[in-house]
Amino acid sequence: MTSFAKQFQVKHGVPFSLASVDPRDTCGFTDKEKTKLTTAEDALVIDQLQERLFAEGSRALLVILQGMDTSGKDGTVRGVFNACGPAGVHVTSFKVPTADELSHDYLWRVHAKCPARGTIGIFNRSHYEDVLVVKVKGFASPEEVTRRYGEINAFEKMLTHNGTEVLKFMLHISADEQKLRLQERIEDPVKHWKFNPGDLEDRKLWPQFMEAYEKALAETSMAAAPWHVIPADRKWVRNAVIARIIREKLDAMKPEPAKAKGYDPAKIVIV
Amino acid sequence: MTSFAKQFQVKHGVPFSLASVDPRDTCGFTDKEKTKLTTAEDALVIDQLQERLFAEGSRALLVILQGMDTSGKDGTVRGVFNACGPAGVHVTSFKVPTADELSHDYLWRVHAKCPARGTIGIFNRSHYEDVLVVKVKGFASPEEVTRRYGEINAFEKMLTHNGTEVLKFMLHISADEQKLRLQERIEDPVKHWKFNPGDLEDRKLWPQFMEAYEKALAETSMAAAPWHVIPADRKWVRNAVIARIIREKLDAMKPEPAKAKGYDPAKIVIV
Repeated sequence: MTSFAKQFQVKHGVPFSLASVDPRDTCGFTDKEKTKLTTAEDALVIDQLQERLFAEGSRALLVILQGMDTSGKDGTVRGVFNACGPAGVHVTSFKVPTADELSHDYLWRVHAKCPARGTIGIFNRSHYEDVLVVKVKGFASPEEVTRRYGEINAFEKMLTHNGTEVLKFMLHISADEQKLRLQERIEDPVKHWKFNPGDLEDRKLWPQFMEAYEKALAETSMAAAPWHVIPADRKWVRNAVIARIIREKLDAMKPEPAKAKGYDPAKIVIV
Repeated sequence: MTSFAKQFQVKHGVPFSLASVDPRDTCGFTDKEKTKLTTAEDALVIDQLQERLFAEGSRALLVILQGMDTSGKDGTVRGVFNACGPAGVHVTSFKVPTADELSHDYLWRVHAKCPARGTIGIFNRSHYEDVLVVKVKGFASPEEVTRRYGEINAFEKMLTHNGTEVLKFMLHISADEQKLRLQERIEDPVKHWKFNPGDLEDRKLWPQFMEAYEKALAETSMAAAPWHVIPADRKWVRNAVIARIIREKLDAMKPEPAKAKGYDPAKIVIV
């Protein structure tokens, strides 16, 4: 079987250009309403597979979401994982580091939030901020950023060798689409709380951010923890693609409920 | 409007008997399939209200689930909160304390897991184990347990005064129903991983556990953080009652999206 995910994956060590991916691509999905139904079905299967993963109790899945402001990281969590429910899926949104977090190495806070066996962990932003915004704004030297690519690869390899599969998604929106989405937050009072004037500063640095993404994706897209670039101007396409990739991955993991441990079912008598 | 929750609440300081609540009571719900639809609708509304709570960003809801093994704590999380999705709801399952947890006071580990503003936190077991199993097995002196009731009340009052509403549920199953559910775990290989021979030790102490629950519920059911005793032999009734109580609470909280903070929407220009 050919892998659906493959077509979205970035090749390790090969120069990568975001311009090669159209943010408005429909990725072969033609009918919006039909696609939404397929995504809902994928979401239900993801739920069932996560339950099996929990019953197995020996492996985990870490999903990393990155993208510019308004690229749809929160929307992806709702669209792809809502059917899963809260018990087996843990979402962590990484913000500007606190003083306590800054007093440790940059992987410390993310390591602490890696998923427990049996569960799916979702990172809304991640340690990749430490080679993206940190690079663009010069918070670390170019040498330091280069070293971090290798450190991140070693860290994620360690995770995969210890039972945590890693899938990474860059939600690729166009600057035009971001403008529309920011405008909406300004115009709709119910969305005012979502707007942060600081987002406009990042928007001015759009080309620099794209360049930082291209470099980071190529440097850290390993076979064991691949980066997927997802056309994200259309929310329904974004959800459909990510749901299918996650489902495909969990299917391939083939989780099986664990056998009886520490007791013989045939010998238990309940009075 | 009369409160639906009221009829399930334990009165503070008044001797309480679990024998007064029939675990098989249908609580006025007659048709199983219709009730399931109502519960699913309540679950969707809970999701919407949680989203508003997040948009408001100033208050939280803590839901505490307690009950004997197999009483349906995990099932309640699925049945009532699954529509919420993982981003705004955080479930913590408290197990036998680790060495690190034991090296702190008994409220330390639960305090760390209290929900952030805008979210719903669910405790699957909680600090109540420290006045239940701890009491039954004599891990603390009777004087110590008595002192803890007051400490817990003070702790939960502090939470409510600081924006976290607290609702507590005791899932009340009969010993006969537990026997059936344990039997099922033994007989179905897919459920073997759920069975823990240690559960049979607790089962032998059933009357002592009921007594410890009765005392703890009466001592710690405050107006601000009430205990509800939920007939739980029928899963669909249990879910229906809890969903309705949670929905009623969130409705009463009337969450409203926060206004623009730190900027004037009329003055923002996006280029």
